[in-house]
Amino acid sequence: MGEWQILINKIREFNIERDWSQFHNAKDLALALSIEAAELNELFLWKKPEEADPEKVKEELADIFTYALQLADKYGFDVNDIVTNKIQKNALKYPVEKAKGSAKKYNDL
Amino acid sequence: MGEWQILINKIREFNIERDWSQFHNAKDLALALSIEAAELNELFLWKKPEEADPEKVKEELADIFTYALQLADKYGFDVNDIVTNKIQKNALKYPVEKAKGSAKKYNDL
Amino acid sequence: MGEWQILINKIREFNIERDWSQFHNAKDLALALSIEAAELNELFLWKKPEEADPEKVKEELADIFTYALQLADKYGFDVNDIVTNKIQKNALKYPVEKAKGSAKKYNDL
Amino acid sequence: MGEWQILINKIREFNIERDWSQFHNAKDLALALSIEAAELNELFLWKKPEEADPEKVKEELADIFTYALQLADKYGFDVNDIVTNKIQKNALKYPVEKAKGSAKKYNDL
Repeated sequence: MGEWQILINKIREFNIERDWSQFHNAKDLALALSIEAAELNELFLWKKPEEADPEKVKEELADIFTYALQLADKYGFDVNDIVTNKIQKNALKYPVEKAKGSAKKYNDL
Repeated sequence: MGEWQILINKIREFNIERDWSQFHNAKDLALALSIEAAELNELFLWKKPEEADPEKVKEELADIFTYALQLADKYGFDVNDIVTNKIQKNALKYPVEKAKGSAKKYNDL
Repeated sequence: MGEWQILINKIREFNIERDWSQFHNAKDLALALSIEAAELNELFLWKKPEEADPEKVKEELADIFTYALQLADKYGFDVNDIVTNKIQKNALKYPVEKAKGSAKKYNDL
Repeated sequence: MGEWQILINKIREFNIERDWSQFHNAKDLALALSIEAAELNELFLWKKPEEADPEKVKEELADIFTYALQLADKYGFDVNDIVTNKIQKNALKYPVEKAKGSAKKYNDL
């Protein structure tokens, strides 16, 4: 079994034990993910990038992965597939010769 | 090599080809992640959870994983470790007998 | 009539004409506000603070005010009162002698 | 003096007393606003719209207005003008005959 699936199974088990699946509709899972993303960002607020506490970054990032994995599980997405496909799509949107060294969005390139 | 490490390597290669590492400080990566999280949430706006387009959810979720993996890579975190540790911490914060069937935050339990 | 009440009335009229009140529950209004906040943040992504386009900042900020005013209207809050009260509360949480020149959160002061 | 300007002046005075202007670049102000927006959204997480605590909504909404006003002040925007202009632009993007009773985005109308 792949690593992602092992993590998903652990999260599933955690939720089943607590009878939490009833709350975990996709809309609230997406909302929970964005709230964790904001908590991650708060670690950098009024600071330089290197001033965030790595231990706290670790915690918030783990929360983000946890909700992202629950959403992937809910929709039956294979994490390896969707990320690999997205990298390929981005490679077409941001061709090396145009995008090299530029932070512009693809529609401004 | 683990699954998520393979994905990180693909993302690294993508960024090196485009010389994008210069933009990818941790603060902006966290910001990018939260913007993708908002794009995911927009798919559910004014809608019921089941009305979001799964194909679009897939795209946004892939973007979120991509930035989360870049942050894990930047800090040298092992994705399996940080997620597994977080599940264990949450199990202590939300003991089954207290948390079962409740959506309350741990400090309200 | 106060300035913000005039704006609320204009927004109300806009929504009534389009029969949009049916979608505007408080949860989705809050979600819409956070999505607009992310669009504002995207103007600063990978950039220095002064590199965001002021015209675009203006547009996104206007969207944020529009949703914030709709939420205030939904709950019957007086904008002057709630902001003034919050400034007073913050003055207690962040006493001048402790907070001067520090970006720390009140619980770390 | 208008109501918005009175609130902006109070916030300015608060920040000057604490010497906080040094932290308040536009990028971090926008980030702070989105973090407050996430805290507002957290009040609705796993809940129906009417289940959020109005007193807490009031606090978070006041924080959002406070940061939005600071950004308006930083760029020298007149709140009445930018919101009124935006409503007029939205009226063109969402003509009544097309938008009535529909939650679609303007580019899907």
